[in-house]
Order: sequence, then C-alpha cells, then structure tokens
Amino acid sequence: MRATSKVAGVREAARRTTLLAAPRLSQRLGVELTLASETFQHTGSFKFRAAYSVASQVPNEMIVTASSGNYGQALAYACRLVGKKCLVVMPAQSAKVKIEAVREYGAEVDLTDVRVKGRLERLGEVAAEHPKAYVSSPYDDELVIEGNATLGEELAAVEPALDVVVSPVGGGGLSSGIVTGIRREGKKIEVVAAEPLMANDAARSLRAGKLLANEAEPMSIADGARTMSLGKRNWEILREGLAGIVEVPEEKIAEAVRLLFELVNLKAEPTGALSVGAVLTEGELFRDKRVCCVISGGNVDVGVYAKILSGDQ
Amino acid sequence: MRATSKVAGVREAARRTTLLAAPRLSQRLGVELTLASETFQHTGSFKFRAAYSVASQVPNEMIVTASSGNYGQALAYACRLVGKKCLVVMPAQSAKVKIEAVREYGAEVDLTDVRVKGRLERLGEVAAEHPKAYVSSPYDDELVIEGNATLGEELAAVEPALDVVVSPVGGGGLSSGIVTGIRREGKKIEVVAAEPLMANDAARSLRAGKLLANEAEPMSIADGARTMSLGKRNWEILREGLAGIVEVPEEKIAEAVRLLFELVNLKAEPTGALSVGAVLTEGELFRDKRVCCVISGGNVDVGVYAKILSGDQ
Repeated sequence: MRATSKVAGVREAARRTTLLAAPRLSQRLGVELTLASETFQHTGSFKFRAAYSVASQVPNEMIVTASSGNYGQALAYACRLVGKKCLVVMPAQSAKVKIEAVREYGAEVDLTDVRVKGRLERLGEVAAEHPKAYVSSPYDDELVIEGNATLGEELAAVEPALDVVVSPVGGGGLSSGIVTGIRREGKKIEVVAAEPLMANDAARSLRAGKLLANEAEPMSIADGARTMSLGKRNWEILREGLAGIVEVPEEKIAEAVRLLFELVNLKAEPTGALSVGAVLTEGELFRDKRVCCVISGGNVDVGVYAKILSGDQ
Repeated sequence: MRATSKVAGVREAARRTTLLAAPRLSQRLGVELTLASETFQHTGSFKFRAAYSVASQVPNEMIVTASSGNYGQALAYACRLVGKKCLVVMPAQSAKVKIEAVREYGAEVDLTDVRVKGRLERLGEVAAEHPKAYVSSPYDDELVIEGNATLGEELAAVEPALDVVVSPVGGGGLSSGIVTGIRREGKKIEVVAAEPLMANDAARSLRAGKLLANEAEPMSIADGARTMSLGKRNWEILREGLAGIVEVPEEKIAEAVRLLFELVNLKAEPTGALSVGAVLTEGELFRDKRVCCVISGGNVDVGVYAKILSGDQ
C-alpha cells in the first residue's frame, strides 16, 4: 500500500518508455517484436526509475552510492530533482565522459583508484564519513524494485497484450521490477531474462536453485551486467518469477547492437541489446509470440560503439 | 477541404513524431530545446508521411519514383500498405543496404549506372514504359506537402507552445509541409530552415527573391539535401513562409551528429542533424527561445556514421 501510493511519484517523474514496432527486425528474427526502449529515459537508462524512487522516498538528505555507470547518473539527476545531496564513488579509471555526466547532473564524484582500493570498500569509508546518508544499492533495495516496477506496469498495459517480455539481467533490479509490476497489474505475461553467457551467475543460480556468484567480475561487453551476483531481494523474486533465462554469447550481443542500429535506428548500449541478443540466441523460445524486448539503456562510449559497428567486437 | 479530409489517412498511418526533451544538449546550446525525431517514423524518416499521402490519394495502381535514399524506402512501404505496385529507380552505385531496404519493403528496384544515364533520364524512360503509373516527386507535389504538413500539425500542438521550429531543407518538401501544417492550426510559430552551406541554393534564392539552383549536385555529408534546387511548389510556400535560413558548415553537421549521439542517445543521419547544426552555427538567433529541432531521419550507412563518430568527418 505504502509502496503503491508513493511510487506514484516515479510514474509522474519518469518518461514513459518508448515503444517501437520494428517490422524489419521482426521479420529478421521471426517473431512479432515490440521494443520498449529506455534509452530516452531521463539520464538515458531505466535506472532513473529506481533512482527517483529512492531519492524521493528515503528521509535522508544525502544519498551515496558506488557506480561506474548508469546508476550514478540517474541518482545524481534524481537527487537534483528532489533537492538532495548526492555523492557517487567512481573508479578513477572510468571514462571521462561518464565522470563528467555525473557531475553535469549535479552530484559530487569521489574517485577511487580501484587498483588500490575497491569501490565498495571506498563506499564503506564514504558512508562512515557521512553517517546520516542513505547508502543506495543499484538493485538490492525494495525501493529500487518498486521504481523499476513502473516499467512492468507500462508493459502490462500494452495492447494487444504481450506474450513475453525479455529483460537484461545483471544485479536483477530491472527484471525483478518488471516481474513485480506485471503481477501488480494482474497480467499473465512471461518474463525471460537475458544474461551474458560469460557472466551467467543468474542462470547458474536458477539451475542450482540457490544464489550463486561469479568468481571474478566478468568482463562482458555488456558492462551493466558485470555484477558478481543477483541481489538477495531480487533473487527472491526472480527464482520463481522468471519463465526462463537465456545465456547470450558476446558475439550475439554485438550483433544485436548492430541490428538495432541498422534496422531500427536505435542506439543501444551492449547491456541494453542483451534482450535482442537473447532472441538471436534462442529463437525457438519466442517463435510466433508477441515478444517485447526491453532495451534498458543507451549510454555507451563512442569508441566502444564505433568498434562494435565496424564488427571489431 | 479535400486535402484536409483525405490527409486524415496519413495521420492514422504515420507514427506520431517522437518528442524528446534534451536537457544536456539544451544546456550545451543555451536554448530550451525539444527534439522532434522522425528517426522512428515508418521506414526511418519523415518521408513516409509524404509517401503515404501520395500512395493513398492518387488513383493510379502503380507509382514510380527516382530516389537513392529515404523516399524510395518510404514509397515502397506506403505502396505495400495500400496494395499498389511501386518501382524505384536507383543508382547502381547506391549502398547495398539501401537497395535491399527498398526491396524488403516490397518495391521493384530499377538500377541505373548514373555514369552512363542520369536518374531522372532513366525515370523518364520508366514512366514511358508504364504510361498509367504516377510519377512521384519527393518534394514538388501538393500531396507530398500535405503529407508532411501532418508533422507541422503535431508541432503546433506541443505544450508549452514552441517559439521556433528548425527544419532541414533540401528540395523543400519537409519545411514547406511544416509551414503549411502550423498555419492550418492557426499558430504563430516561426519556421527556420537549416541548409548545408555548400548546398545553399535555398538561402541564395531567399536573398535573391527568386528560385536559384546549384550548378552541380553538392556533395554535402547531408545527402538528403543534395538537391539541385527547391521545388517550385515548395518555393512558393517558403519564399514568404520562412522566418530565416541558416547555412550550416559541414563540420557543424558532423558535430551535431556526435552531440545527438553523446547527449541524447539519438542516432541521426547527417541530414537529420542539420537542424541542431543550425543552432550550433547561429546560436544567437535562438537564445532563450523554446526551440524545436526536427530530426528528419536516421538512415545512415554504418561506415559513414562510424567515421563521423570518430571525428574523421
């Protein structure tokens, strides 16, 4: 009840997802495809939904997080909108454009040399220096799941009704949110997760029936899915909420980025293209179904993107 | 009256333009910027509006045109939707992906070696072979202007009201349509055209008060604006309908493509980025105004795009 009423603020603040019919890509993939693109969401990824949910609902006047990517930008902007202080711990090795983006959105950036000190270790120090601050996880947090559930609600309302939603999975914040939102709307749409094969902790966890972690940070080009494991809260939802999970090889992720560029005019980051990569990888799962691939974000380094387009990656 | 009622079909068939607030790009440019992106329009550019207007309104069962680019794809798809035959004359030198796209949308392609025979000459032959076919100009046609006017109508309805719309100009089909649509809605929004400096026949025509042409096809990277001159019907509307015209140097077009990629996650073709290039070129014209830049299309060859991103072009 509390969550449902408060999350109304996220629905107001977030940009509705951009639904794109993709006739040429549908034909190529042999499925009836709709894309739900979060690349034009505020700050360029779905993470704004989660960040705004946190920023607008916690009582703390300051929020700290560790992020090298989309969650940092999203939280910076959400905090600016609600008038709170934000501090983002980032690896000193991050691309300059990413550091600049977080600063442009109004947050303080704390750079840590990750060869000397891990991000989470530094986050612990920062949290100790700011004992009244809320320490925000990008996925393992009910408020995050609630925020991302607004996307699930939007997908539940798509007409004609979808059969399957395919969602990228890293820490599980997005996919658990989508499951939650679709359920809340009382719809029977299957949710399938798309995970990099080389970072397949979620797939292994589902097979084992218990939460497993990667041994080291997997260096997939889908950098938003380089998480060590699912969050605990996310796992509890996904273990019985997913209809399946597809492990996507790196070359299929790159191919999906290229197909989105060529056939849909859509700039997707590799993590965002995972869902289309899943359909490329296991087409039979989706044949003749009304499939919605969630493109989770579009923020990708220009050099990385140009390499993928040229087929070098 | 006739046009207004019949063009209703275009409003039905076309995808509404994708309106994007662009806070980071606004900040960079010093204007309150909205983008109206036609990159997700059917077939990837605004041309579908014109093509559907023609295909659905002429009585002929077959339509022929000459196009190396967006109009060919748009007409092919529009004809498929209304069940008509379509033949597109294309240079044999066109990029393969463009030829394939026209075929995928269901049209017949007639390849002509433009070193031997010009496109328009070949179009004349094709028209003679098919005397009952409608020969369709991508811009100099009332039905084209009517179709593109639906975008003007959409922009007239944007709230809060826009001060200025910036539109790419080549043959003048889009800009004259926008002027027409805004007027029909009774709004006082200025329309400024954005033209490549090296293909500035429209700017020179406005200054001279008479329709002038380029001496040869200007090889701007904005290949949708490589027209020899404005169409006559378009000129009649634009000569008194434009508030101004900005001549955009090639490097500003490329910079606009990069800014749209980096700050908005938007894949634009160079012609589509002309409008943002115009704001980069003459910022003072737009300072502190509510400006809408029309991104006319997103279909760009992958090699060309990668080059622009890398700063080589």
